[in-house]
Amino acid sequence: MSQKSGTPKKNLMLFSGRAHPELAEEVAKHLNVGLTPQSAYDFANGEIFVRFDESVRGCDAFVIQSHPAPLNNWLMEQLIMVDALKRASAKRITVVLPFYPYSRQDKKHKGREPISARLIADLFKTAGADRLMTVDLHTAQIQGFFDGPVDHMHGQRLLSSYISEHYDTSNLTVVSPDAGRTKLAEKWADDLGGCPIAFIHKTRDPLRPNEVVANRVVGEVKGRLCIVIDDMVDTGGTIAKAVAQLLDEGASGVVIAATHGILSGPATERLSSCGAQEVIFTNTLPIPDEKRFGTMTVLSIAPLLARTIHEVFEDGSVTSLFDGNA
Amino acid sequence: MSQKSGTPKKNLMLFSGRAHPELAEEVAKHLNVGLTPQSAYDFANGEIFVRFDESVRGCDAFVIQSHPAPLNNWLMEQLIMVDALKRASAKRITVVLPFYPYSRQDKKHKGREPISARLIADLFKTAGADRLMTVDLHTAQIQGFFDGPVDHMHGQRLLSSYISEHYDTSNLTVVSPDAGRTKLAEKWADDLGGCPIAFIHKTRDPLRPNEVVANRVVGEVKGRLCIVIDDMVDTGGTIAKAVAQLLDEGASGVVIAATHGILSGPATERLSSCGAQEVIFTNTLPIPDEKRFGTMTVLSIAPLLARTIHEVFEDGSVTSLFDGNA
Amino acid sequence: MSQKSGTPKKNLMLFSGRAHPELAEEVAKHLNVGLTPQSAYDFANGEIFVRFDESVRGCDAFVIQSHPAPLNNWLMEQLIMVDALKRASAKRITVVLPFYPYSRQDKKHKGREPISARLIADLFKTAGADRLMTVDLHTAQIQGFFDGPVDHMHGQRLLSSYISEHYDTSNLTVVSPDAGRTKLAEKWADDLGGCPIAFIHKTRDPLRPNEVVANRVVGEVKGRLCIVIDDMVDTGGTIAKAVAQLLDEGASGVVIAATHGILSGPATERLSSCGAQEVIFTNTLPIPDEKRFGTMTVLSIAPLLARTIHEVFEDGSVTSLFDGNA
Amino acid sequence: MSQKSGTPKKNLMLFSGRAHPELAEEVAKHLNVGLTPQSAYDFANGEIFVRFDESVRGCDAFVIQSHPAPLNNWLMEQLIMVDALKRASAKRITVVLPFYPYSRQDKKHKGREPISARLIADLFKTAGADRLMTVDLHTAQIQGFFDGPVDHMHGQRLLSSYISEHYDTSNLTVVSPDAGRTKLAEKWADDLGGCPIAFIHKTRDPLRPNEVVANRVVGEVKGRLCIVIDDMVDTGGTIAKAVAQLLDEGASGVVIAATHGILSGPATERLSSCGAQEVIFTNTLPIPDEKRFGTMTVLSIAPLLARTIHEVFEDGSVTSLFDGNA
Amino acid sequence: MSQKSGTPKKNLMLFSGRAHPELAEEVAKHLNVGLTPQSAYDFANGEIFVRFDESVRGCDAFVIQSHPAPLNNWLMEQLIMVDALKRASAKRITVVLPFYPYSRQDKKHKGREPISARLIADLFKTAGADRLMTVDLHTAQIQGFFDGPVDHMHGQRLLSSYISEHYDTSNLTVVSPDAGRTKLAEKWADDLGGCPIAFIHKTRDPLRPNEVVANRVVGEVKGRLCIVIDDMVDTGGTIAKAVAQLLDEGASGVVIAATHGILSGPATERLSSCGAQEVIFTNTLPIPDEKRFGTMTVLSIAPLLARTIHEVFEDGSVTSLFDGNA
Amino acid sequence: MSQKSGTPKKNLMLFSGRAHPELAEEVAKHLNVGLTPQSAYDFANGEIFVRFDESVRGCDAFVIQSHPAPLNNWLMEQLIMVDALKRASAKRITVVLPFYPYSRQDKKHKGREPISARLIADLFKTAGADRLMTVDLHTAQIQGFFDGPVDHMHGQRLLSSYISEHYDTSNLTVVSPDAGRTKLAEKWADDLGGCPIAFIHKTRDPLRPNEVVANRVVGEVKGRLCIVIDDMVDTGGTIAKAVAQLLDEGASGVVIAATHGILSGPATERLSSCGAQEVIFTNTLPIPDEKRFGTMTVLSIAPLLARTIHEVFEDGSVTSLFDGNA
Repeated sequence: MSQKSGTPKKNLMLFSGRAHPELAEEVAKHLNVGLTPQSAYDFANGEIFVRFDESVRGCDAFVIQSHPAPLNNWLMEQLIMVDALKRASAKRITVVLPFYPYSRQDKKHKGREPISARLIADLFKTAGADRLMTVDLHTAQIQGFFDGPVDHMHGQRLLSSYISEHYDTSNLTVVSPDAGRTKLAEKWADDLGGCPIAFIHKTRDPLRPNEVVANRVVGEVKGRLCIVIDDMVDTGGTIAKAVAQLLDEGASGVVIAATHGILSGPATERLSSCGAQEVIFTNTLPIPDEKRFGTMTVLSIAPLLARTIHEVFEDGSVTSLFDGNA
Repeated sequence: MSQKSGTPKKNLMLFSGRAHPELAEEVAKHLNVGLTPQSAYDFANGEIFVRFDESVRGCDAFVIQSHPAPLNNWLMEQLIMVDALKRASAKRITVVLPFYPYSRQDKKHKGREPISARLIADLFKTAGADRLMTVDLHTAQIQGFFDGPVDHMHGQRLLSSYISEHYDTSNLTVVSPDAGRTKLAEKWADDLGGCPIAFIHKTRDPLRPNEVVANRVVGEVKGRLCIVIDDMVDTGGTIAKAVAQLLDEGASGVVIAATHGILSGPATERLSSCGAQEVIFTNTLPIPDEKRFGTMTVLSIAPLLARTIHEVFEDGSVTSLFDGNA
Repeated sequence: MSQKSGTPKKNLMLFSGRAHPELAEEVAKHLNVGLTPQSAYDFANGEIFVRFDESVRGCDAFVIQSHPAPLNNWLMEQLIMVDALKRASAKRITVVLPFYPYSRQDKKHKGREPISARLIADLFKTAGADRLMTVDLHTAQIQGFFDGPVDHMHGQRLLSSYISEHYDTSNLTVVSPDAGRTKLAEKWADDLGGCPIAFIHKTRDPLRPNEVVANRVVGEVKGRLCIVIDDMVDTGGTIAKAVAQLLDEGASGVVIAATHGILSGPATERLSSCGAQEVIFTNTLPIPDEKRFGTMTVLSIAPLLARTIHEVFEDGSVTSLFDGNA
Repeated sequence: MSQKSGTPKKNLMLFSGRAHPELAEEVAKHLNVGLTPQSAYDFANGEIFVRFDESVRGCDAFVIQSHPAPLNNWLMEQLIMVDALKRASAKRITVVLPFYPYSRQDKKHKGREPISARLIADLFKTAGADRLMTVDLHTAQIQGFFDGPVDHMHGQRLLSSYISEHYDTSNLTVVSPDAGRTKLAEKWADDLGGCPIAFIHKTRDPLRPNEVVANRVVGEVKGRLCIVIDDMVDTGGTIAKAVAQLLDEGASGVVIAATHGILSGPATERLSSCGAQEVIFTNTLPIPDEKRFGTMTVLSIAPLLARTIHEVFEDGSVTSLFDGNA
Repeated sequence: MSQKSGTPKKNLMLFSGRAHPELAEEVAKHLNVGLTPQSAYDFANGEIFVRFDESVRGCDAFVIQSHPAPLNNWLMEQLIMVDALKRASAKRITVVLPFYPYSRQDKKHKGREPISARLIADLFKTAGADRLMTVDLHTAQIQGFFDGPVDHMHGQRLLSSYISEHYDTSNLTVVSPDAGRTKLAEKWADDLGGCPIAFIHKTRDPLRPNEVVANRVVGEVKGRLCIVIDDMVDTGGTIAKAVAQLLDEGASGVVIAATHGILSGPATERLSSCGAQEVIFTNTLPIPDEKRFGTMTVLSIAPLLARTIHEVFEDGSVTSLFDGNA
Repeated sequence: MSQKSGTPKKNLMLFSGRAHPELAEEVAKHLNVGLTPQSAYDFANGEIFVRFDESVRGCDAFVIQSHPAPLNNWLMEQLIMVDALKRASAKRITVVLPFYPYSRQDKKHKGREPISARLIADLFKTAGADRLMTVDLHTAQIQGFFDGPVDHMHGQRLLSSYISEHYDTSNLTVVSPDAGRTKLAEKWADDLGGCPIAFIHKTRDPLRPNEVVANRVVGEVKGRLCIVIDDMVDTGGTIAKAVAQLLDEGASGVVIAATHGILSGPATERLSSCGAQEVIFTNTLPIPDEKRFGTMTVLSIAPLLARTIHEVFEDGSVTSLFDGNA
């Protein structure tokens, strides 16, 4: 007899980078598995070392990492983890990016720029990733940057459900803080039962093209509760200005909702003092206590991540989790 | 002596598919070169055969093809031309796509869909393309689908200059026919000196999500000359409805401007009878006489293509041709 | 516990392009599975859209498409289906090409030609195909164009068995319609018990090299029933001339047998009136009623395709299906 | 100033493996360059070491190797030379294979076989080859195995010109030693002014399929001078039997002509005693004195190789060297 | 129902090249499987042909080949076997290299040299290998040459255990025959309980840099039993000289231990007469009777190979087999 | 006429990351070119943006970046620069890594570790690098991690020349701080005219394998001036201990020499107080004033980098710059 036969097993294993271990632990708890123990530390010059403490041979690996500052560090750590898994014979490697790094650099805005979001996809492919899993991409086209399956989860639904439950939807206007997010506002309006939408039109002086000279609100906001939406909030400047302008133009109130709370530099101060009555994020990025304030609400993305990982592991339908969009 | 030395030459050669030879000839004329003669024909079952009649060894090849219906045929012809050039030792192969095929399928709108625009980029890479050159992509992110240089030319500037020269810009509103093109409208507004913008908000019944229940114009249009802009017009249904609605809401007149005139099926009838006073396209796609009508203006993209090809051949700056965007 | 374990399943799913759904349905019936429901349609400019209506995650996918005219359309449709399967996490993708498109362009006949048959293999690889399955390649070397497993099925056996059952094999001569198929004729002769073979020698005028000046039958045909064989019949010109010449030189009768009935343009008229007493094809390509005539016999390739798909799914031996040739 | 400019040079450099240095030297002489000096030797366990003695940075490298026995050794040496050139910054690397190794294994004759000819193409690509140059491939489809330009030179023309000059062409029959080379015989007949062709039909016993039971000459040979042609002669068994049979059936004389004289084992004895009046080869493979005999003629392929290398270096047309076939 | 479901099986199949069948058979016996029967033979010009006699579809293939002289032959045979497995639909292909060929050429010692050890890794990848398994690499960095998992087994442990069992370890010095193996000597010293180490310092004349002018023993050896260690012994010159010098400097005795016994040319004579009291190898390479002598001991690597193959097949931990080093 | 001809130019352009601009400027000055102006800045969350201010089309680009802490940041910046150059049509991209990041992780020391040094090579390849240039790799095998040319420059020569000029070489011993660098010490000894070498042997307790229990100096050091050499000094712990031990064992003095001064954490304090009379580095990494002390000497690597870049640009021999080692 020239063969030795058997029945293959499949094993789900979860791995977490060091950027946001709480999220990974929450996902692990929902999945009822432990995080794979590992040794990970930095050399004095910044080089990162990772070693897994258990055999990963043949496993279905999910590598969760968040990408707050210092983002390049966490990125490199995740690439190194993928390399180690590849060389240690993991069967399939899924990279979980709750916030896709460099997603704003998804095109050349001018000549001689990188397209860093494509570069990120290629770097993970090179390291050994078989598939990506991510939440609310800055633009959905980024899915096409990866040569393989991408599970694109919808955190927006989590936010809009929260709005529906906590606010009277009959007097809402969804507001995009700039022209480029108007389509997103339209999707929000559909989720919220068909309310009106508006956006802020930034005009530029043709002689000084990089300078915005005026912001005009286009659409109806007077006397209405405005939900200012975005995929991410970084330093909060644009969105805080939008809130001020909406209140100036007679909005009855303003709520901010965005999936990714980057919250760099002055963001917390700006958001807490801009006049918004509530500011809502998910925890795709860690939001430490010192960045939080009384009117901020943080919803957990972990249940959605866990359900998606479960479906991927079981070859179930991920599309069905959010009405057909992955 | 173990070497034989010399000075390399570089030769620009232009190749044209059979979809729109007039455009290629116009480009050739501007560049003061001839199109490389070739034998190209279809077998009875649709298989395409191409053979070049002159040596192409070592040349800097530019392969121009337009992509009107039957689009898959012209796509395959261009892929075959690239394969033949690669095997015949062309030094560098630039694929010129005045209209990027399948650009609307640039993401998965729902689960289990292809991302055909990425597939197109990969097919050209596989066939042997070193670089792409294209005009007014449906979304700029498509640049990132190709693993190599993409020269993204701006046909919009050609259109906006025409508007500036032929219309009084003091009473204009730029209108996006849907929420997704609002950012494009903002760029147009900047080109036209800072005029207001508006867009059509399509609302959907949450119980019947694929059905639009109402269109609302968001922004000011009453008494103003509306420039309805888009990157492409296919069957013309959306844009004709937009014109009607704008006139209903008191616009003083409507002009349509778009880079790519696909003009399928009822497009000509709809556009000629929708009430627009002028309809402006470029010739990135062939617009045959039977699809033209009295108020249609077609601007030639050939000078821009020729200038870009010239700069690429001479290693000059393409960015400078359109203020920094390639 | 840091792992979650389970036993993997495997699921065979069949997908069909729109070129020849009857064949796919017949295969499905033999396999006792349904075709996966999908939405597939053409945009007005020829762009094809495909979406699968059921989850395909983790499946063993077989994508069947025939390639009659307009061949480039069906090719592109199949590439797009493969892209969608890859992005939707199919586990393995087998492309089924009953007739391999562009198989005649399997080499450069002269300089500066493409090798389109290699290009086809590369395009499928790029789109995401893991393996190919095909029937009676124009030349067996095409197997080597794909970087992966190719299951090359033998339709010829189906045809020769039919001949053996319906004709007296003691007085047969197998005739190749040109010098290049003589080896194929030899294989037929082996299948039919060792009968003689002949071929048509085309002579060319050295001064006008592309023009055939005379056809000579080489081998014995007088008083014998000639089986003119080929892998495909396109416009039928060559084969009809061969039949006429064989009858001229005293053949007692002529039967035509070929795997792929392309039957372009005048083929039906030529074949039905050329004097052959029977013309036999398989249905690797659809042969609509209007192309059929009284003495045409069409044998179904579906049982062979179904058996091969079954063996591939079950990791059984495909070679054993046809005495060792895949 | 942020640039430093200059005019590039191009340098042709020739490299030779150790299998057949005489051929490389002859080519070098025709090109008027020297072979690049190198250190090449074998370690005791068979590992090969190569080092070039001059800088090869930026050169246009042509790496000539013949492939007689021990073929795998010479193959590995050439792969190692290509690797060294790639790592030493050669600008372009052309692999010259006068005889393409493993060309007979260009398809799977049965299941579970390799396609070694494709493997060879891929190995050279992996090592760093940009292009291949070869002579009279066993089947022209092998060109399609390499992903890049292949210059396929025609040694057959050299042989047929020799025949035309030395024999009366009015009474010739070109004979293929088996059914698979009949197409090649037809091309020879065209070259020789349209003479008749014949081939040997091998019949097999259906119960013992690998055993040839009889050879039949198909075509006219009686009283004619038969030119038995092939691309290569290995042990000479088939071709010697063909000669005997042709003489038996009344041929007035037989001449053997083939491009590649592998001449393994008993070949010399068989060929010298089979009754052929002349046996003609080229020197794509070395034919040492002990394998030669009085009626053997060896024509040099070096002038053709040199002309082709010259055209490739100068970006001239190779196609024109042999009427359009590369 | 559009799916057909089942449970996958997994089958281990062992394949052996012809270089050292005894080792493969010994491994097979330990695993309790047979070697897959195959036809493998050489054509007269050295081309190798391989065909497997049983279906390999879907199997987990392990391809064992040793690499003694003529090494390039066995390398090519193994590459061809991998190609055949890939094309015959093996599920996973592990290449087993007990001795990694060309491992000494793991860097450019001077300019314009190949890095043949990297080339080997790439050739196997190209042929279709998914993973490598090897023993005691010349330098551990070679693991990084392969883009995928490498199981690096430790034969050294086998040797050091043998020493511990057969010699009094209280008076040992481990000696590296040159400066480059000192680190290896340190590892041996750790295995043997912390004994001292020494090495031979070769000094060169700056005016004749490739010539060693003197060897100095650095470290304590007087009155001690010296274990001279290395990863491989080729012609034995260096190591025999080291033994002589150690005895000269007062060593009480010398034992040689190395994993790979290449034993080219004069090796046997040198080793048997150099004064070493025992010479120990493993059988990663075949050591035929004529190369053996009275004081040579050959330990079998087969049990370690078999255990590793078993763990890889069962997705167990290979690291645990040797304390964490793969 | 179907061609447009010209003579190509070549332009050298230098690009510098932000980690160590002084080194790049020094290189630029030696080459007599300017650094290409660029905009480079960090977003608040750590994302890096780069845009070049001049056309780079067709240039021969050299991208210099040093890699001190925060190393991952500088790595990502350099990858992004390469991506931008690729997309902006640079003709050739050479990545200059004076200190190769992650070079210590060049193998798996234990199971389930990454091989980060290979990952780095692959990431640069993926981003678009055509070649690498680096100085004194931790192990020369890393050259083989990149699939393309690597110019490996020798900073060691700079250091050893300095020693020769400033110290009496007749009483030197070169000391490796651990067993793994003994080979390097041997090369130093050759450079310094053949002096003796020594190394520190670290012994481990077999029961606590990661703990060093004792250091033994192997070789003669008493009364001699010891040159302790290494490729890099990070926290300085090992090397400071070595100095102390050498002085304990009677060395007449100690000098430290290493190419890369990482100098993390306590390094400066340790080195300045360890008893070494001089500590010598090159500036492959920036050594800011606060890390310097009285007995530290820093030699500039810029002239060597500039000469190498010049030779690469001019296709001259780099090997000749350091006696044959690239």
